Amino acid sequence: APAPPSSRYPRYTREEVGRHRSPQDRVWVTHGTDVFDVTDFVELHPGGAEKLLLAAGGALEPFWALYAVHNQPHVLELLREFKVGELSPDEAPPDPSAAQDPFAGDPPRHPGLRISSRKPFNAETPAELLTERFLTPNELFFTRNHLPVPAVDPGSYRLRVEGPEGRVLSLSLSELRSRFPKHEVTATLQCAGNRRSEMSRVRPVKGLAWDIGAIGTARWGGARLRDVLLHAGFGEERDGEWHVCFEGLDADPGGAPYGASIPYGRAVSAGADVLLAYEMNGEELPRDHGFPVRVVVPGVVGARSVKWLGRVAVSAAESPSHWQQNDYKGFSPCVDWDSVDYSSAPAIQELPVQSAITHPRPGAAVPPGELTVKGYAWSGGGRDVVRVDVSLDGGRTWSVASLAGERAAPGRAWAWRLWELRAPVPAGAQLEIVCKAVDRSYNVQPDTVGPIWNLRGVLSNAWHRVPVTVTR
Amino acid sequence: APAPPSSRYPRYTREEVGRHRSPQDRVWVTHGTDVFDVTDFVELHPGGAEKLLLAAGGALEPFWALYAVHNQPHVLELLREFKVGELSPDEAPPDPSAAQDPFAGDPPRHPGLRISSRKPFNAETPAELLTERFLTPNELFFTRNHLPVPAVDPGSYRLRVEGPEGRVLSLSLSELRSRFPKHEVTATLQCAGNRRSEMSRVRPVKGLAWDIGAIGTARWGGARLRDVLLHAGFGEERDGEWHVCFEGLDADPGGAPYGASIPYGRAVSAGADVLLAYEMNGEELPRDHGFPVRVVVPGVVGARSVKWLGRVAVSAAESPSHWQQNDYKGFSPCVDWDSVDYSSAPAIQELPVQSAITHPRPGAAVPPGELTVKGYAWSGGGRDVVRVDVSLDGGRTWSVASLAGERAAPGRAWAWRLWELRAPVPAGAQLEIVCKAVDRSYNVQPDTVGPIWNLRGVLSNAWHRVPVTVTR
Repeated sequence: APAPPSSRYPRYTREEVGRHRSPQDRVWVTHGTDVFDVTDFVELHPGGAEKLLLAAGGALEPFWALYAVHNQPHVLELLREFKVGELSPDEAPPDPSAAQDPFAGDPPRHPGLRISSRKPFNAETPAELLTERFLTPNELFFTRNHLPVPAVDPGSYRLRVEGPEGRVLSLSLSELRSRFPKHEVTATLQCAGNRRSEMSRVRPVKGLAWDIGAIGTARWGGARLRDVLLHAGFGEERDGEWHVCFEGLDADPGGAPYGASIPYGRAVSAGADVLLAYEMNGEELPRDHGFPVRVVVPGVVGARSVKWLGRVAVSAAESPSHWQQNDYKGFSPCVDWDSVDYSSAPAIQELPVQSAITHPRPGAAVPPGELTVKGYAWSGGGRDVVRVDVSLDGGRTWSVASLAGERAAPGRAWAWRLWELRAPVPAGAQLEIVCKAVDRSYNVQPDTVGPIWNLRGVLSNAWHRVPVTVTR
Repeated sequence: APAPPSSRYPRYTREEVGRHRSPQDRVWVTHGTDVFDVTDFVELHPGGAEKLLLAAGGALEPFWALYAVHNQPHVLELLREFKVGELSPDEAPPDPSAAQDPFAGDPPRHPGLRISSRKPFNAETPAELLTERFLTPNELFFTRNHLPVPAVDPGSYRLRVEGPEGRVLSLSLSELRSRFPKHEVTATLQCAGNRRSEMSRVRPVKGLAWDIGAIGTARWGGARLRDVLLHAGFGEERDGEWHVCFEGLDADPGGAPYGASIPYGRAVSAGADVLLAYEMNGEELPRDHGFPVRVVVPGVVGARSVKWLGRVAVSAAESPSHWQQNDYKGFSPCVDWDSVDYSSAPAIQELPVQSAITHPRPGAAVPPGELTVKGYAWSGGGRDVVRVDVSLDGGRTWSVASLAGERAAPGRAWAWRLWELRAPVPAGAQLEIVCKAVDRSYNVQPDTVGPIWNLRGVLSNAWHRVPVTVTR
C-alpha cells in the first residue's frame, strides 16, 4: 500500500494549542486532529464571543456535544477555512468517553413529538394534534431546551431570591407552596422561532426548523412572582428602569446558566399574572418543562419563562445572559451576520399577533363538499384576538372564522383562541387557504414572510398559507 | 310656454307627513317638495337608526345642514328610491333662514390646513409640514369635529364628574387648574381614519378622505383624569368591567352630545397618563381642539379624546354614544353595509403600528444624487417604535431609517418618532418608496391595504408607498 501523503500543515502538540486562549495570543481550537485559528471568527460566532472563548486552547468536541446545533455540514465547512495545522501524530486522539454525553440524564419523551433537535432536546406538538384540545397535554407540549435537563432533587431544592439591600430569601419547594397563595393562570407559551421553517424557505436562517407547533396552552399553577417579590422586601414601584432577572439550574460547560429577564413593572403587576409555577395542567411540572419550578410570563415570548428556576434578582440592567443580550431579538431583513449589532434591537418581550392553520395540512387532498378549516390564534401582551379572517383563494376573498371559547378579561387574554371555518369546496379545485388574525389593538399579521425575514428566523407571523387540492 | 307635466305622485300636506314618525306608522321625511318613506332604510342608516328618526315626520334640511356629509350626489340618489309623494302646492317651501347655519359660530382656521369637510370642520396638516417639527403647531394640528364647535364661556364652564353613590363633583376651570397638580404629557393623537384615502382606492368606503395628515403631536397640560376620579371618590381598582364615559358640549339637533368611553383601568392608571387637558403646546386649548377642557388619552384612537368636555361618568357599560357603539370599529373586508353587525366588533381603543412617508410626495420628480426620505412612525398603547425599514424598490430590498429623538419610558411611548433615510438614487430611475415600522411588541404593518379594507375605512396602516421619478 502506498504511504499516505505527508501533510502540508505544521504539526502542534496539545500543549502548544493550549497557549492560544485569547485574541491577543490568537484563539486556537482543535477538532479531531485538526488545529484551527478562529481568532477572526470569535466576534462573528452566532452563539456569542464568550461562548467560543470557553473552548479556546482545547478541543471543540465537548462543547459541540452540548450545543448540538454545530453538528451540521456547513459548520465543519466554515471551520475548514481557519485550519492552520494538525496535531502531532504523537498526540493521542481525544478520548471519546471523556466527552461524556451531558444529555444522558434527559427524561424520556412522548414518541408523538416532532423532534427538531435531540441534544439539546427540542420538539413540537404535531400540527394535527395542536388544536384537538384547548389545553395542550403536558406530554405533547412543545419543548424548547437550550441545555441538558438538570436533575433537581425536590427535597434539597432552594430558590434564591435576592432582596433589596443584600437580603437573600432562600425558599424550599414546600415553602414556595405554603407561604404564598396558589394562583392559576391559563396561558399560551410560544417560542420566538415558531413557524421559522416558513422563513427559511425565503432565505436560510440560523435556528431550529420549527413548523407551526412551537406553541401550546396550559393551566399553570404556582406562586405569583409579585407576591414573592413583595415578600422579599421590594415595593410596588421602583423609580427608574429595573429588571427582574431569572437564572435556570441548567448550565453550559463553563457553568453559565440559562438566563433571561423581564421589566420590573410586569413582574410586580397584579394584572400581569407572572407565576413561579410548580404545576402544569394540574400535575407537577414535568422535567422537560422546568421541574420543580419555572417562571411563566403570560403574553411574552417563551424564552423569558425560565425553567428549572434557581435564582431571582432585581437589577438595573437586563439579564447579562447570552439569550437576553445576543439572541431572541428581531432585525431588519437587510441585516446579515456581518452587519448585525445585537445592542441595536430590544430583547423580544411581548410577541406580535399570530395565527396558523392546523387542518388541513399543506399538500393535503380533501374531498369536495364542506371543508372544515381549523387553527389557533393568539397575541402577546394580553391582547385578545378579536377576529380571524380565512381565505380559500390566497387572500383575494375572506370569511370570518368562528372563535371557540370565551372572551378573556380585558388586557389579560393570555390564552390562544381556537377557531374554525366551514366552507363548501368544489371538486377539483386548487385552494390556497390563508388565515390572519386581528388583536384587540387591531394589529394584524403581515401578508408575506419575505419583508419580515431576519437572520435568526424569529417572529415569523406572516399569513399562514396552506395549499390544498380538492379531489374529484 | 307648455304647462309642466302634472306629477304622477300623490300630494301630501306637512301635517300629513308629520303623522309618520315611527316604523309602526312608517317613517316619512321631506326634502325640498318631495316626500319619502324611508322606513326600510332606518336600520341601514350609516349614522344610526336613532339619528334618522330624529328627522321623522319633517324636513331633512335642518339635519343635513348639521351633518354635511349628506350633501353628496349619491345620498340624493339613494333617497330618490324612497320617494312616495310630493308636498301639496299649497304648502310653503321650507324657509331657508329657518335652517340657520349651526356652524356659523365656528372659529377661524389657518388657511394652510387641508380641508376634508367644512361642516363639520375637518382638516389635516399638509404632509410637507407634518414632520418639519416634532411638535405640531396648534394652528396646523389636524382637526376632527363631528358637530359644530360649541361656544363655551370659560367663566361659567363647569365640568360635571359623577362620583360613586350619586355624589356629583362640579368643577370650574379654575378649580380644575388649582385643585389638581398640572401634569404634562407629549402625545400623538391620530384619527382612526388617517390614510383612509388609500383604502378608498381599493373600493369606496364611507368617511372623510384623509391623506396621511390626520395625526399630530402636542405637549398637553392638564389635570390627570386619575387624580380627578380619586378625588371624586373612586378607588384604584373596581371589581368587574367598568368604563369611564365622556360627553362633549357639542351636540346634535336632538341634543345628543358627542361621547366616548375608555376602560376604567386605563383611566385610573398612573402609567397611562390620561389627561383632562387645558393646555396644548403651552397655550390655552384652541377652540377647535376642545376649549376649555378636553380629554387626552395617549396611545388610543383620537375619537376617545373627547373635546369640550362636559361630563365624566363611570358606568358598567361603554358609552352609549353612536361613536362608541356604531362607528370607530374594525371589520373584515368581507363585511358590507348589508351584513355589518356593530355589536360584533370591539370599539377601537389602542391603534396598531403606523408609519408614513412625508417627503418626497407621491408623483414627485427628484434630482439624482442623494435622496432624503422623511416620515413619521407611531404605535398605540405606549409601545415605542423600535425600527423603521425603508425600501426604494417597492419592498424587495430594505434599509433601516434613522430615528430622531429619544427612546421613551417603557410602555409610555405616547409620541411619534420622526425618521429619515438618505440614499443615493440614479438618474432616470422609477422608485417606489415604501416604509414600514416595527413596534416594541414586534408588531408590523401589513404589506397591502386590500386585505385590511373595511367599510368605514378605518385602521389604514398598510405599508405607505410613494412612487417617485428621478430626473435625468
